[in-house]
Amino acid sequence: MHDACGVVGISLNETANGAAKSIYYSLYALQHRGQEAAGISVHDGKSIRTHRAMGLVSEVFDDAQIALLRGHVGIGHVRYATSGRSCIENSQPLLVKYKDGAIATAHNGNLVNSTQLREQLEEAGDIFYSTSDTEVIAHLFVKELLHYDLPEAARALMRKIVGSYSLVFLWGDTVLALRDPLGIKPLCIGEIDSGFMVASESVAIDTLNGKLVRDVKPGELIVIRNGEMKSYQLARSTRPAHCIFEYIYFARPDSIMDGRLIYDVRVNIGSNLAREHPACADTVTPIPDSGITLAVGYHQHSGISYRECLMKNRYIGRTFIMPDQNMRETAVRLKMNTIRPNIEGHKLILVDDSIVRGTTSRRIVNMVRKAGAQEVHVRIGSPPILAPCYLGIDMASRDELIAAHKTVAGVEAVIEADSLGYVSHEGLVDAVGIPKENLCMGCLTGLYPVPIPGEKCLAEQTRLSEYLD
Amino acid sequence: MHDACGVVGISLNETANGAAKSIYYSLYALQHRGQEAAGISVHDGKSIRTHRAMGLVSEVFDDAQIALLRGHVGIGHVRYATSGRSCIENSQPLLVKYKDGAIATAHNGNLVNSTQLREQLEEAGDIFYSTSDTEVIAHLFVKELLHYDLPEAARALMRKIVGSYSLVFLWGDTVLALRDPLGIKPLCIGEIDSGFMVASESVAIDTLNGKLVRDVKPGELIVIRNGEMKSYQLARSTRPAHCIFEYIYFARPDSIMDGRLIYDVRVNIGSNLAREHPACADTVTPIPDSGITLAVGYHQHSGISYRECLMKNRYIGRTFIMPDQNMRETAVRLKMNTIRPNIEGHKLILVDDSIVRGTTSRRIVNMVRKAGAQEVHVRIGSPPILAPCYLGIDMASRDELIAAHKTVAGVEAVIEADSLGYVSHEGLVDAVGIPKENLCMGCLTGLYPVPIPGEKCLAEQTRLSEYLD
Amino acid sequence: MHDACGVVGISLNETANGAAKSIYYSLYALQHRGQEAAGISVHDGKSIRTHRAMGLVSEVFDDAQIALLRGHVGIGHVRYATSGRSCIENSQPLLVKYKDGAIATAHNGNLVNSTQLREQLEEAGDIFYSTSDTEVIAHLFVKELLHYDLPEAARALMRKIVGSYSLVFLWGDTVLALRDPLGIKPLCIGEIDSGFMVASESVAIDTLNGKLVRDVKPGELIVIRNGEMKSYQLARSTRPAHCIFEYIYFARPDSIMDGRLIYDVRVNIGSNLAREHPACADTVTPIPDSGITLAVGYHQHSGISYRECLMKNRYIGRTFIMPDQNMRETAVRLKMNTIRPNIEGHKLILVDDSIVRGTTSRRIVNMVRKAGAQEVHVRIGSPPILAPCYLGIDMASRDELIAAHKTVAGVEAVIEADSLGYVSHEGLVDAVGIPKENLCMGCLTGLYPVPIPGEKCLAEQTRLSEYLD
Amino acid sequence: MHDACGVVGISLNETANGAAKSIYYSLYALQHRGQEAAGISVHDGKSIRTHRAMGLVSEVFDDAQIALLRGHVGIGHVRYATSGRSCIENSQPLLVKYKDGAIATAHNGNLVNSTQLREQLEEAGDIFYSTSDTEVIAHLFVKELLHYDLPEAARALMRKIVGSYSLVFLWGDTVLALRDPLGIKPLCIGEIDSGFMVASESVAIDTLNGKLVRDVKPGELIVIRNGEMKSYQLARSTRPAHCIFEYIYFARPDSIMDGRLIYDVRVNIGSNLAREHPACADTVTPIPDSGITLAVGYHQHSGISYRECLMKNRYIGRTFIMPDQNMRETAVRLKMNTIRPNIEGHKLILVDDSIVRGTTSRRIVNMVRKAGAQEVHVRIGSPPILAPCYLGIDMASRDELIAAHKTVAGVEAVIEADSLGYVSHEGLVDAVGIPKENLCMGCLTGLYPVPIPGEKCLAEQTRLSEYLD
Repeated sequence: MHDACGVVGISLNETANGAAKSIYYSLYALQHRGQEAAGISVHDGKSIRTHRAMGLVSEVFDDAQIALLRGHVGIGHVRYATSGRSCIENSQPLLVKYKDGAIATAHNGNLVNSTQLREQLEEAGDIFYSTSDTEVIAHLFVKELLHYDLPEAARALMRKIVGSYSLVFLWGDTVLALRDPLGIKPLCIGEIDSGFMVASESVAIDTLNGKLVRDVKPGELIVIRNGEMKSYQLARSTRPAHCIFEYIYFARPDSIMDGRLIYDVRVNIGSNLAREHPACADTVTPIPDSGITLAVGYHQHSGISYRECLMKNRYIGRTFIMPDQNMRETAVRLKMNTIRPNIEGHKLILVDDSIVRGTTSRRIVNMVRKAGAQEVHVRIGSPPILAPCYLGIDMASRDELIAAHKTVAGVEAVIEADSLGYVSHEGLVDAVGIPKENLCMGCLTGLYPVPIPGEKCLAEQTRLSEYLD
Repeated sequence: MHDACGVVGISLNETANGAAKSIYYSLYALQHRGQEAAGISVHDGKSIRTHRAMGLVSEVFDDAQIALLRGHVGIGHVRYATSGRSCIENSQPLLVKYKDGAIATAHNGNLVNSTQLREQLEEAGDIFYSTSDTEVIAHLFVKELLHYDLPEAARALMRKIVGSYSLVFLWGDTVLALRDPLGIKPLCIGEIDSGFMVASESVAIDTLNGKLVRDVKPGELIVIRNGEMKSYQLARSTRPAHCIFEYIYFARPDSIMDGRLIYDVRVNIGSNLAREHPACADTVTPIPDSGITLAVGYHQHSGISYRECLMKNRYIGRTFIMPDQNMRETAVRLKMNTIRPNIEGHKLILVDDSIVRGTTSRRIVNMVRKAGAQEVHVRIGSPPILAPCYLGIDMASRDELIAAHKTVAGVEAVIEADSLGYVSHEGLVDAVGIPKENLCMGCLTGLYPVPIPGEKCLAEQTRLSEYLD
Repeated sequence: MHDACGVVGISLNETANGAAKSIYYSLYALQHRGQEAAGISVHDGKSIRTHRAMGLVSEVFDDAQIALLRGHVGIGHVRYATSGRSCIENSQPLLVKYKDGAIATAHNGNLVNSTQLREQLEEAGDIFYSTSDTEVIAHLFVKELLHYDLPEAARALMRKIVGSYSLVFLWGDTVLALRDPLGIKPLCIGEIDSGFMVASESVAIDTLNGKLVRDVKPGELIVIRNGEMKSYQLARSTRPAHCIFEYIYFARPDSIMDGRLIYDVRVNIGSNLAREHPACADTVTPIPDSGITLAVGYHQHSGISYRECLMKNRYIGRTFIMPDQNMRETAVRLKMNTIRPNIEGHKLILVDDSIVRGTTSRRIVNMVRKAGAQEVHVRIGSPPILAPCYLGIDMASRDELIAAHKTVAGVEAVIEADSLGYVSHEGLVDAVGIPKENLCMGCLTGLYPVPIPGEKCLAEQTRLSEYLD
Repeated sequence: MHDACGVVGISLNETANGAAKSIYYSLYALQHRGQEAAGISVHDGKSIRTHRAMGLVSEVFDDAQIALLRGHVGIGHVRYATSGRSCIENSQPLLVKYKDGAIATAHNGNLVNSTQLREQLEEAGDIFYSTSDTEVIAHLFVKELLHYDLPEAARALMRKIVGSYSLVFLWGDTVLALRDPLGIKPLCIGEIDSGFMVASESVAIDTLNGKLVRDVKPGELIVIRNGEMKSYQLARSTRPAHCIFEYIYFARPDSIMDGRLIYDVRVNIGSNLAREHPACADTVTPIPDSGITLAVGYHQHSGISYRECLMKNRYIGRTFIMPDQNMRETAVRLKMNTIRPNIEGHKLILVDDSIVRGTTSRRIVNMVRKAGAQEVHVRIGSPPILAPCYLGIDMASRDELIAAHKTVAGVEAVIEADSLGYVSHEGLVDAVGIPKENLCMGCLTGLYPVPIPGEKCLAEQTRLSEYLD
């Protein structure tokens, strides 16, 4: 399961310099949101310069590259993509030129009406270079900018695109930030030395020693020029739909998102999980890294000892040679090793954030059994994933989702656990501390906050967005 | 503080193949012992082939390279080195050719009489290509092999070299493993599918799904040919001198070393630290990653809540651009970010493995104070480091070691902690579970197990080694 | 002085395979037309795959890349560009997606109304990703393809674009080749094993052991699908305007272009130069490599001995470190060394293809004088370059062209030659063997075959093109 | 057929700087002598620093590398090697450290008693890291330097090593140059701005705008320190034995070697070839590049027209993908293309420097026949190669040499020429202008200037060297 992207935009006052280096460090802080490609666009006073390539931030940029990216304003992007679409053409920021200038786009999220919009544009003769919905957004926005001034154009864009989007644009020397009316994906504002920034997560602001001002509001447009910031509330929804999985899994624990510290949310989830699914065991242990904070919460509530039983190896690089078929066992052990004495003869509570296909869970359960675990009780920090995500997370198709086809007892049998417990919807929502109505829980319920072709969409689940003048 | 190296040797029976791939995975499991260079030598039935280069295991080798390294027997090495000596000439295995054949050498440890030995060899006309003591070892061993058969030659070598050494040789198609008479650096034996292996740590054996047989004994020579193993006890000491810092810091927590699980040792240290240096605080938190297990132990004994307050960023690559002077704050935050709500208003117990110069500790104390910590009590899982290590760890010179010049109160003042507590010698030894007399604690006492020029060496501290026939 | 590009298109019958490899070898044969970037697009039965990157053909592609480019049909491109525009975005083939499919474009030439066309398209809302006129062509062609069937669409495209263009398209699984109505840049057709190909020069056909069928006619569209070829004469001009500099300098001597072997043309030029500008000297010597065949011609007509006096070093790679200011002399000598005894005391006739700025000529004249030349008579295989090229050659601006501002006597003085002779317009045209009216000699006359903004354009010089149904 | 290596040494006076950059440009001028690996060693005032790697000079070094190689004195090497021995360990300069310091060695040539010397050294316990005879030389030289002062040590070295050697050493901050007593491989001295240099060929001196002083004499030791040069004549032979193939093929035409301009020698050879082997033909044409100057000479003497019929493609890089078996014809055409109209219906004299196996000659003869040649007369600028070279040229084994097993008529039949003529021994020697007795013509006669195990060695052919005090 993977998140799509991280975005950042920085505008310093005119006398400052070196936006590129600050963007570089911000992207580094957002690297967990995408390790496939990275890119930076800056405006150097005359035009926009972009450098983007496949790889980690530290691989894509070196001193010389950063030095070439002169200017006091710019945006950046880190990207994840499945292998099929993995190519330089799909990396971002996407720079386009049009009648009145140039605009670079960085996007986190996913449109659900991208295909229709693209067909309409193609019908009208538009030409595309990639398969990304970011290119669709760039086309639509440019068309509006040709007819309207800035807030109007952005509003017109919002009326057309449906889905999740936290967008950062570099429009000439101006940074724009636009968050969808439901606020599905995160986006926040920071104040830094001699300017402002926007970023997917507050950790990017921390890295630059800045101050988190607030989240960009759902439906809000932020305009930053020469280190000054303006806000336009372009749309308002009956209620927001913040992505629940940012809290469970994606965001860094040290980020603050829509007012909640991710770390606290995860401890709470673990705690509620312990309350709802106790187990007679002597050891609480996480599947690293994503299960760690959940396991701490489980331990705190249950009083059962917290012990590390699995060690993760951190050195698998992009060119790592994976084992052949006849070295299957090795494949698992390369990523994770057991600390046998903490396992042998123990009754374990194994805490993880989610179960997607069930194969990894089964392998790990088997590995700890081989290491001598007496009992293995699996506890999961999310309810069963019943449906695909259409709004920015590359989970899996419905066919592949084990919980879409099996009961909890069925999953328990497949992963060969002694017991299996998922946190309840209520327990999860309580832990997050945001009313259920204000969250997107599509993957857990099959009910999405926007109409999705081929999916049920109860009227009461769908948010209505009103566009404001 | 850095360890020197990791070594591995694998000998499969003649019909098996692909030693190189198994060595590759073993080195990957030992990557934490050295990230600067990696190398593999194999015997392909006729001669020894070596590939070694600067970089991580995953960067140095690709499928094509591994395919070229045919054979059922070989050795490998990962290396750390300070920048001054960082070059391909110093990487290993070191392959030399002589009258009767060829021998490749991989070494973990440090000789204390390397300079004298080298001068003697140079005096006799020997020529060297690098500045490493590994080359000195290779020269001496070859000279003995010209005159004696195998066990005698190895014994003669041991008589000459003084210091720490866990050596793995590829001698024609035979793997040799030799551990110094005091057993200073670790080395263990594993049984794997169709053969045997030796490695610095047992995690390498786990990765290949093998079984830890036992440690190589101090003063023992292990000979593996065609998947069969023989042992020769060449020397015996009054008592061993296992490196204490392998337990405190270097080894992976999931390794078993001289009969102790590293994880358990570290929990025990944390527990003893809590007993010896309690603090009136509400939060126990580690400096990641090395403080984590120690903090778990402190928490278990004290009952004070365990919370993560510092997040480590894992994506700094080799080509990462470090910030300029005017971005000092950023430099700290790039590696570590605070989880402010877990800190603000809290009284923290900050647990780390050691204090070398004190500068990093001070920066972190300041960072958590800025994040709102009410009190900061620093607890260290080792006694003060008073003296340099001459036996394989690149710590710092005596001038740089803060505890060589200041009392605990002085260090406390420098790092600006509210209180500072080091685990006692007794607490540490108790946690390791090995008698004090059988450990090397030179860096903590200034008393070394072998005579070191310019250092005090109390007779009762120095071990006498008897060479056996 | 540099040419812009080389293009190739290959369509094998459906049962054949490996178009990519044949394109690879063709591009290699065309490498002299552009060393900055290379790319290949193939249709794999379903969609178009492209790989393009900066570098030589042998650097851009390896076995793995070629293996990924499956299919029996494809196109390729090699590119030169001045440093300012040197980036991956401007490399080709350029792949675009539109309503009815995808089309990849490879272009050799230059449009003179690109800016206006682009402005019109931008006015209508079109968006661009690069600054190349190739993107303008792709946009226009797609728009026509949405409304017309193939020959009509191509004809409509031709009506709009003005300038030089030898275009190769991959349109689904069909290769299209289109040459401008004046036939400015070369393009020829070859028959190869199991298919047809088009290429900038016939040497590409030779490399694949194919047979040169004929040139693509000015105004002709060639359509190749499944190894079958069709022709559509879309436009006819009063007379063609073949680029004179292809004959003088750009094309490989072993190419046959519009019926003339380049080698013969150059020998003829040299011969006419000898007739027009004899000199009392004992040695004819070329400035390698472009002066070689011209010098052979001069020698044959004059009977004066041919001797090599200058040796060219062939190993300057892309990363070659150029000398500092204080090593000026070295800079010249790195590329060219004198064979002193062939020079010392001799009266030389130094033959080169053209003089652009005059700086290189002066340096070489000085170098041979320093080597002891008694007299240096410079003979040039083109008339003076008086005006810039707008049709595909990156020469220099009018300000930089020495002959735009100086008489022949003036140039002679600047380059410090004992005498200077340019071949006459008549001598050149006679050597080429194509009537003056059928050549583009814009850079030699300032009169261009198409109207160019800011340049004089005598009616009688401009060709009228009639578009045929 | 390939030459082994190129060497260079440069010593500037102490106040000068940047020896590395001058060595870089010198190596570039010598690149034709070896394209496999390159290296530079400099002395930075304290110690010797080396950088060497596989690849062309322009690939091995960049600005940063050169900047790290500080100092006013250093040596360099370019290397060719057959694939078997192609590895970084065998590249040069070879740096060794010993009792009194360090010495870097760069070697062009080949010892014939390397195996015996190595066995003797190994017998005495010496250890080797590579299979090169350069390492043997370094060992021997160091051993002598331990006992004798400089000239004595060099003389003692010369007494031991037998074969061809042009050696350049960096011994501390001193450059040494040593040429074998027979002067088999070339080595010359140049005076440059603020210092002296030695190099394999004079073109390296030209590149630095220096002045060729003279050749290093056979048996001479040159010592350069702080820009001052001393000479020691250590050995004197009855007569020298300059390698004949340097004149025929290896050296650059613009080099002056032992007083002869290579270009002149080759014109003379061509001229003598025309005299000895006239042919009734209308066209003289070279096989590029090595046949060019020979063909010019043939043309001048015969009066038959010189025309280029074959074009060489210059862009095959190290990673070029060679064609599969089913593209055989393409393989030839990738390197060489025919200029058909210069061939069709013509009677050709095809001039090349030598025939080794005969396969390439046959392919080219066939190619020009296919292009319509009426007759093909092959003329070769060397006598038949009857025997292998043991003194520095990697030709082929005796089994592979076609002329070792066939008469001229037999070779003519194999290569399918209408006639075949080799220059005679007398014609060749006359062209070189050096008495036959002073040349090494081992490959043409089977009689070598030094005793070679397994080869006949007539007493009168072997030179006696007297070592002088």
